[in-house]
Amino acid sequence: MFGDLMGMMGKLKETQEKVKATKERLNHVSLEEKSSDDLLKVTITANRKIKSIQIDDSLLADKEQLEDYLILTLNKAIERATEVNEAELAAVAKEGMPNIPGMDAFLK
Amino acid sequence: MFGDLMGMMGKLKETQEKVKATKERLNHVSLEEKSSDDLLKVTITANRKIKSIQIDDSLLADKEQLEDYLILTLNKAIERATEVNEAELAAVAKEGMPNIPGMDAFLK
Repeated sequence: MFGDLMGMMGKLKETQEKVKATKERLNHVSLEEKSSDDLLKVTITANRKIKSIQIDDSLLADKEQLEDYLILTLNKAIERATEVNEAELAAVAKEGMPNIPGMDAFLK
Repeated sequence: MFGDLMGMMGKLKETQEKVKATKERLNHVSLEEKSSDDLLKVTITANRKIKSIQIDDSLLADKEQLEDYLILTLNKAIERATEVNEAELAAVAKEGMPNIPGMDAFLK
């Protein structure tokens, strides 16, 4: 029994390292999200850090429209980044999880 | 042994419900982030959904400056939302985790 526990702890430690390495790698995974008419472009990392926002001059004429464009495009970008982030981290964490039915519920 | 496993699975199911309820509640937790001069205001939920972006008219005169303001303020808003999100979900998940030393590493 004690040996099992030690084995499990070792595996968790190893997985913890992998989770950390994955988080570091996700800093260098970039996603681009554009408004349907390409007037607004957002680049974001899979760790949800915005790298660039490119606004077409024409959008500066109508502030409320620009604000709506930003909210829509940014939310899509954050959502996509979160999907990649969670999928990658769940895959790594799953490897290290003890095999208890229902445990993967924590990785959704 | 079997009884333990059933007990653990029951606890995990219960915690899964709590995680779900917490995620729902976080939709209604809003954070406001402002640029230091208050010319840009962003409201975001603790599930990282942007609810509003308010741009001062003066920022529309210089597009590059506006883009920089947006990147800085939005990244701070997303970061703060992620801190609240992860703290709340980790607290709930921890309750349901089997007591294996090192397990909490998955909740960082």
